[in-house]
Amino acid sequence: MELNKQVILKTLPHEKLSESDFHFTHTEIPQPQRGEVLVRIIYLAIDAASRAWMQGDTYRPVLQEGNVMPGLALAEIVDNNEGNLNNGDLVLAETGWQTFAAISDENLIALPTIPQVSYLLSVFGVPGLTAYFGLLRIGMPKAGETLVVSAAAGAVGSIVGQIGKIMGCHVVGIAGGQAKCTLLTSKLGFDMAIDYTEENISQKLSQLCPKGIDLYFDNVGGEILDAAIANMAQYGRIVCCGAVSQYDRKKPGSGPVDVPGQLILKSLSMRGFLLFDYLHEQALAIKDLETWLRSGRLTVVEDIIHGFENLPQALIGVLHGENTGKRLVKL
Amino acid sequence: MELNKQVILKTLPHEKLSESDFHFTHTEIPQPQRGEVLVRIIYLAIDAASRAWMQGDTYRPVLQEGNVMPGLALAEIVDNNEGNLNNGDLVLAETGWQTFAAISDENLIALPTIPQVSYLLSVFGVPGLTAYFGLLRIGMPKAGETLVVSAAAGAVGSIVGQIGKIMGCHVVGIAGGQAKCTLLTSKLGFDMAIDYTEENISQKLSQLCPKGIDLYFDNVGGEILDAAIANMAQYGRIVCCGAVSQYDRKKPGSGPVDVPGQLILKSLSMRGFLLFDYLHEQALAIKDLETWLRSGRLTVVEDIIHGFENLPQALIGVLHGENTGKRLVKL
Repeated sequence: MELNKQVILKTLPHEKLSESDFHFTHTEIPQPQRGEVLVRIIYLAIDAASRAWMQGDTYRPVLQEGNVMPGLALAEIVDNNEGNLNNGDLVLAETGWQTFAAISDENLIALPTIPQVSYLLSVFGVPGLTAYFGLLRIGMPKAGETLVVSAAAGAVGSIVGQIGKIMGCHVVGIAGGQAKCTLLTSKLGFDMAIDYTEENISQKLSQLCPKGIDLYFDNVGGEILDAAIANMAQYGRIVCCGAVSQYDRKKPGSGPVDVPGQLILKSLSMRGFLLFDYLHEQALAIKDLETWLRSGRLTVVEDIIHGFENLPQALIGVLHGENTGKRLVKL
Repeated sequence: MELNKQVILKTLPHEKLSESDFHFTHTEIPQPQRGEVLVRIIYLAIDAASRAWMQGDTYRPVLQEGNVMPGLALAEIVDNNEGNLNNGDLVLAETGWQTFAAISDENLIALPTIPQVSYLLSVFGVPGLTAYFGLLRIGMPKAGETLVVSAAAGAVGSIVGQIGKIMGCHVVGIAGGQAKCTLLTSKLGFDMAIDYTEENISQKLSQLCPKGIDLYFDNVGGEILDAAIANMAQYGRIVCCGAVSQYDRKKPGSGPVDVPGQLILKSLSMRGFLLFDYLHEQALAIKDLETWLRSGRLTVVEDIIHGFENLPQALIGVLHGENTGKRLVKL
């Protein structure tokens, strides 16, 4: 008899997350109750933010030890009790790290079947929409401006930089390692890239952005944010999207030393956002992303790992900056 | 023969500013050259920011040891070589800490003679205009919102809170000591006040702002900024106007620990500004401030110290939060 495999968050990590914080188990495949459907999970999205959920309350309550590790899935309906959905329909759902789940059908929508279904979790999913709304609604880039993106080879950053080019910006990406930097400039159309593992970020930003940074899209926080703030142009804008450098530790570290000083001296703004606030506009975003994709102006980068047993290591790797583009685990 | 008394910045302070960093001297009264006028200084404005000018380059190059200590003055023209101004005209000018100065007449404007001429350096001067534009243009308060102001009994804060009330906000001031807190609530119309020398700021903010802070006008940075960030409402805005807690030290301390984390989770914005950018609108601001003053909705608080010899101590006191309202030295 087939079982439901699960990954349990055994312990909330005190310092860096490790495989020993997780525990593999299995249960019977659940029976969907009234108003529920049973889904089989195809892909799980690996999100750095899920490490932040272990630090304390965020937009969701802090994770609890002993629970199935949460995570967003692309799943297929395999037992549809009574709803409007059909077996075989693809849906996005917060199922957690398991192979099957019985979930409420209330907010489920059957997704279009597209050739690369993984795109539903990458360019047409949370990272694509986050990049789109964060850059266009919060950052409001103008042609000719200098845009700097951190974690530029990551799920969000790789799309932000490409949309920046479509908007006519001069785009500089910050990424870890020469391979990622080469990807940015040779495949994704970035004007320049900085390898933060090898270069002095602040010096390099000052060389590559001689008129200062007009728009900084921050996915990392920490020292790279400090370096960007030091190199902002007068009236520069900072979009605060993520802080991956601060997640894999007990608590976030010390804040940016030049805040509020440089914000005052250069009349800078910093603004955070969450995707939730823009979901009512997602059809527009998906239409634009699709158009750019078809015309070849947007290239999707995904980092797909195979095998349920690799889930913990897949997340740990993301926290170490291992992934290129959106990391997904295919079950 | 009358001499020109001067205060020289003898040493750039390594830690806290002290009287021994200054040196009193005198010179002959200068002769105005072509295109210059000679002025006699009546009031010198004491600005906490002048301590920041000793830390490093700001909107002006770092101060140099051996120079006359800079400062903005209200002065009277006493020898007008050839310009359009007349002896007896009052002008605002960056003369530095001295009793006389020969200054270019290029940008000088004869000021209106008003009953309280000191107002030209307080409510109608830099602090009044900073409060007006910072709150209204950057903060954009809406009636019914909760506005928190730090250094609320200071030159800028005392005006910000009162304009906030005029705009229909619920206004909470943070100030040092019971006397200042009483001034805020009994004389200046603030709804509530927090004495940061006695109370846990974050706990108190959470009690007094149960729905969170919609708008925080920050004059201080440091721990009070941390406490405000922790208590912001979703979509809250922070106006970064000053960071007096960070000035009287070698370098600014560590930055706000919840940046960028809380900015992301609560979709907050932080924005700095400098008054320079709004000076073209100053006539409008002065008209509004004058209207509010006449109608009794705005009360001006000034802290006037008499005597040239008290200049260094007047600035040191401002850095220790000693002043109530705008501190001026009357010569």
